[in-house]
Amino acid sequence: MQLGIVGLGRMGGNIARRLTKAGHDCVVWDRNEAAVKELGAEGSRPAGDLADLVAKLDAPRAVWVMLPAGGPTEGTIATLAGLLSPGDAIIDGGNSFYKDDIRRAAELEPKGIHYIDVGTSGGVWGLERGYCMMIGGVKEAVDRLDPIFAALAPGRGDIPLTPSREGRDLRVEQGYMHCGPAGSGHFVKMVHNGIEYGLMQAYAEGFDILKNKKSEALPANERFTLDMADIAEVWRRGSVVSSWLLDLTSIALAKDETLGDYPGEVADSGEGRWTVMAAIEEAVSAEVLSAALYTRFRSRQDHTFSEKLLSAMRFQFGGHTEFKNGK
Amino acid sequence: MQLGIVGLGRMGGNIARRLTKAGHDCVVWDRNEAAVKELGAEGSRPAGDLADLVAKLDAPRAVWVMLPAGGPTEGTIATLAGLLSPGDAIIDGGNSFYKDDIRRAAELEPKGIHYIDVGTSGGVWGLERGYCMMIGGVKEAVDRLDPIFAALAPGRGDIPLTPSREGRDLRVEQGYMHCGPAGSGHFVKMVHNGIEYGLMQAYAEGFDILKNKKSEALPANERFTLDMADIAEVWRRGSVVSSWLLDLTSIALAKDETLGDYPGEVADSGEGRWTVMAAIEEAVSAEVLSAALYTRFRSRQDHTFSEKLLSAMRFQFGGHTEFKNGK
Amino acid sequence: MQLGIVGLGRMGGNIARRLTKAGHDCVVWDRNEAAVKELGAEGSRPAGDLADLVAKLDAPRAVWVMLPAGGPTEGTIATLAGLLSPGDAIIDGGNSFYKDDIRRAAELEPKGIHYIDVGTSGGVWGLERGYCMMIGGVKEAVDRLDPIFAALAPGRGDIPLTPSREGRDLRVEQGYMHCGPAGSGHFVKMVHNGIEYGLMQAYAEGFDILKNKKSEALPANERFTLDMADIAEVWRRGSVVSSWLLDLTSIALAKDETLGDYPGEVADSGEGRWTVMAAIEEAVSAEVLSAALYTRFRSRQDHTFSEKLLSAMRFQFGGHTEFKNGK
Amino acid sequence: MQLGIVGLGRMGGNIARRLTKAGHDCVVWDRNEAAVKELGAEGSRPAGDLADLVAKLDAPRAVWVMLPAGGPTEGTIATLAGLLSPGDAIIDGGNSFYKDDIRRAAELEPKGIHYIDVGTSGGVWGLERGYCMMIGGVKEAVDRLDPIFAALAPGRGDIPLTPSREGRDLRVEQGYMHCGPAGSGHFVKMVHNGIEYGLMQAYAEGFDILKNKKSEALPANERFTLDMADIAEVWRRGSVVSSWLLDLTSIALAKDETLGDYPGEVADSGEGRWTVMAAIEEAVSAEVLSAALYTRFRSRQDHTFSEKLLSAMRFQFGGHTEFKNGK
Repeated sequence: MQLGIVGLGRMGGNIARRLTKAGHDCVVWDRNEAAVKELGAEGSRPAGDLADLVAKLDAPRAVWVMLPAGGPTEGTIATLAGLLSPGDAIIDGGNSFYKDDIRRAAELEPKGIHYIDVGTSGGVWGLERGYCMMIGGVKEAVDRLDPIFAALAPGRGDIPLTPSREGRDLRVEQGYMHCGPAGSGHFVKMVHNGIEYGLMQAYAEGFDILKNKKSEALPANERFTLDMADIAEVWRRGSVVSSWLLDLTSIALAKDETLGDYPGEVADSGEGRWTVMAAIEEAVSAEVLSAALYTRFRSRQDHTFSEKLLSAMRFQFGGHTEFKNGK
Repeated sequence: MQLGIVGLGRMGGNIARRLTKAGHDCVVWDRNEAAVKELGAEGSRPAGDLADLVAKLDAPRAVWVMLPAGGPTEGTIATLAGLLSPGDAIIDGGNSFYKDDIRRAAELEPKGIHYIDVGTSGGVWGLERGYCMMIGGVKEAVDRLDPIFAALAPGRGDIPLTPSREGRDLRVEQGYMHCGPAGSGHFVKMVHNGIEYGLMQAYAEGFDILKNKKSEALPANERFTLDMADIAEVWRRGSVVSSWLLDLTSIALAKDETLGDYPGEVADSGEGRWTVMAAIEEAVSAEVLSAALYTRFRSRQDHTFSEKLLSAMRFQFGGHTEFKNGK
Repeated sequence: MQLGIVGLGRMGGNIARRLTKAGHDCVVWDRNEAAVKELGAEGSRPAGDLADLVAKLDAPRAVWVMLPAGGPTEGTIATLAGLLSPGDAIIDGGNSFYKDDIRRAAELEPKGIHYIDVGTSGGVWGLERGYCMMIGGVKEAVDRLDPIFAALAPGRGDIPLTPSREGRDLRVEQGYMHCGPAGSGHFVKMVHNGIEYGLMQAYAEGFDILKNKKSEALPANERFTLDMADIAEVWRRGSVVSSWLLDLTSIALAKDETLGDYPGEVADSGEGRWTVMAAIEEAVSAEVLSAALYTRFRSRQDHTFSEKLLSAMRFQFGGHTEFKNGK
Repeated sequence: MQLGIVGLGRMGGNIARRLTKAGHDCVVWDRNEAAVKELGAEGSRPAGDLADLVAKLDAPRAVWVMLPAGGPTEGTIATLAGLLSPGDAIIDGGNSFYKDDIRRAAELEPKGIHYIDVGTSGGVWGLERGYCMMIGGVKEAVDRLDPIFAALAPGRGDIPLTPSREGRDLRVEQGYMHCGPAGSGHFVKMVHNGIEYGLMQAYAEGFDILKNKKSEALPANERFTLDMADIAEVWRRGSVVSSWLLDLTSIALAKDETLGDYPGEVADSGEGRWTVMAAIEEAVSAEVLSAALYTRFRSRQDHTFSEKLLSAMRFQFGGHTEFKNGK
């Protein structure tokens, strides 16, 4: 099946590779010419610009946009909207805010262009493992692109089937799902990432407690010097907390138990923030997901104004001096 | 190898079964005679009481105690201490507080009795999947019991090996680990359970946000009615949040997407509480693990005094009436 | 000084009363005719509709809108915009979202109409104590209305002056402040309310811990039955936690220590939610303000889907039955 | 009335001063001789050691111990227990853990020595404003010392009386309270400090949000540069968030709005930690008090192991490089 792909970064490039290997015909473009050439050498058809990419596809066309959320995605979709024809489809496979999807789908509908949002999980492992996809859009458009999604998805693999799923959508067990109308794919992916923040923070706090059990602030007979790498590894087999994130934790700790290469400043993406905002809009209590987000905010600061104010109050009421330079 | 087992509940009974299947010789006792008989019929040797159990074992003996933490475990260990001889070992496989392990090991040391604490994860799936074990105690005693631990552990299975583990303890990759001195096994298990609380709460909040996306409090064009069961299932393949807990979530949601059988009152065990207390003793920030614990506290209440006080303040400063019966 | 007032609810009515007492000339309107009549009888000039209200004022006019945020405020301001002249001013004294202020000010600017947002704190006590006001808008427009703000503000009272404030804006010590351009008044008031949530929750949790110290789950010799009303009262004198909210808490607890009139379902307004969203936009960690908000969300639910999912997972991995009806 | 005072630091010294001014007869001792001399010159009677202090008092004696919790307090009370006679009283005015009070009272009871625990709030302002006191102990012993407590307490002052308090204990309105049996005074004080942490953190987060509203990460038309000092000051009059802590905040910000003297490393005392542990023992959800505590833990670290682990996971699944030195 034909597919245009715009944006050949880590994710977009590997999507083209995985599709090409599966026998699909990818027409690719990126403003980075080297990336286009590289994919061309691996079996994709290179395009010179967006218009050329569109021209190289047969109607009804489908173009997968895999660019950073916000400006780059917005601009590219606007340009494509002018180049495509009724019956064509634009797929936003990036990390767009789902409210932008809802708006774009409504804008494209009068032109007869289908808008499909695909939340794509899998990271750098996706090329090999396949991508878990959460898809939003009109049924007929999503169904038409099924061969693409099926090729990108991980498939059933050797993961045990879940009981009581008889009669349910079989695509789900392959690792992709049509979640609902436009926006719903990115919404589900957004919450997926919010959960990811919470899971990561749960492990992180736990290992922090394990690591600090050797602290000299504790009574001497209550201190343990524990092996972080072995603990992560042992939990991978038979324990309740086994997970893919734990597998990755074990890999990282086996390489260097001190994690000394990482300064500890942790980025956050829009999706973690949007998940908390969605919770607030729905009046859902999201303590853990929020705390996980805030931890990242704090990790990127030397000290907060908030902390200084605490010290200032303590000085005022108790004469507690937490001054710089021991002043 | 011989092993005495005291406590034949869900966990203790299955441990005896798994060991018997592996060819070990289990002498079992429980105050519930039916349980003793049942295990006897499955190949274990039944004992009439603790003294009989000890008498049926050859020195150096090992007795695995699998009872509720606190009184039952404490009393049984005290009795065993009077029956056993130097060189024997007592194994506490339950969920004891690690500071109790440290105390007991120190009390038993002058008698020459080894004390081994084994944090055991696996739940009702352990009989089939094997138990992940975190072991604390003196090296020689732990090493002597290796055949027991090896038989109970899940083994390598088909879980991919972690790179960079060359030269590390191979038992860890079988699913059991000698963590350190007495108490360290239960300490690692305790944090394991604390992490489990955090992981569960992260999923729970995420699915709550997904579920409430259909709320009529939201703008009509921003509502989605999402399929909880399919979302849990699709994330099992290729996504960053895949885990055993997600597998279980998928099983539960496939059976009944509304989870209508569960009122939503969630118990907590000592280990979740102790983990937070350990974090506080170490001055480690444990936002997520604490929030996960508090959610369970709150789930078991109709309304808190805290909430009533908020309403009372709101009435005082703003005349906001949040009275019963619309008073 | 002349002032039009639209919206004669609890807040708007008292503002008219306080201004009238101070000798100002208020022209008032509300869609509730009884409220207009009542204020008319107390010295304000009643208007028949918005156009009449505008007609009864001399240029340059000022109209204070005191309506619920959202639709009512938005519609009234749009109507007023068509009735007023260059040099006139619209004051939004309600609880509008500050981004709406920024937008409205930009829309009104080409018409020469000044837009002023006033965050107003004081609740039902404001008539007597005066209102603390946080004001956003263009300097000349804010300055022109100074007599109005001065009359509404609490004034210096007998609150001790703060050292090192020489040379600073004296209005601030009267209880009103020109915070910055349009929107900044409501932004500061929004954060004020966010802080209020946090303060309230801190007291609420503390009293909950005090109250539950008599719990039978605790060891008998560690239980205390404490007098909630006396504790609140004693902290009012000389303690670090004395505050106006504590004064109100003491009033409520003295009246009924059990707070039995309050079911414990606590409302939240937009400002608490917006504060958390602002924190997220700024990447500021706001653990306490978020937790205070979430507590209110949770208080209005019987049980959450989140809690049911926790029970479902616990059943799956451990056979823990938290079923309805003891099933 | 006679009172022995042991420990003449900031708190103990000022207590002696306030009592001497009120006409009481204080016999004082401290291991720091200079402090003893200084108090002697101000009207207290200096003692040479604990035995001398006891000898200088007439039976029934009362000795107020004002030392750091833990070792110093524990040792002094043990020594005093050997010097005092039946009918005498030991008062622990420091910040002891309430479970230690319960134990000590039980130990002293057979000797006929009364044990009284007094949680004392007021900090460096207490000499002038008086101390808010929360008292635990046997009624007759507490009542006998009433003149001491009355002299130390702030008294009614000009703080408005709370309605509906007719018939209640009048001492409470003077700023001191007999909370219950031994331990209850320090328990109430402990929770008081826990609340204090929460209140402080609520203000701190709010001001952090206000301060960062000028962040360049925000859209240009949504930025405000706000005056921290003026905002703190304006809220002191008529707003819902007025409090003594806000008064102190205003003093600190008026002096230096940047709080540049404070690095932002915030200490925590035992009471904040114990409050959270008490909440956990009671199964009370204490989100805000915990978060306030954790913020202080985090403030004293450069980076946590937790944060490094988050970066390590992000690298593993997404190739996100958060390495040191841009590696």
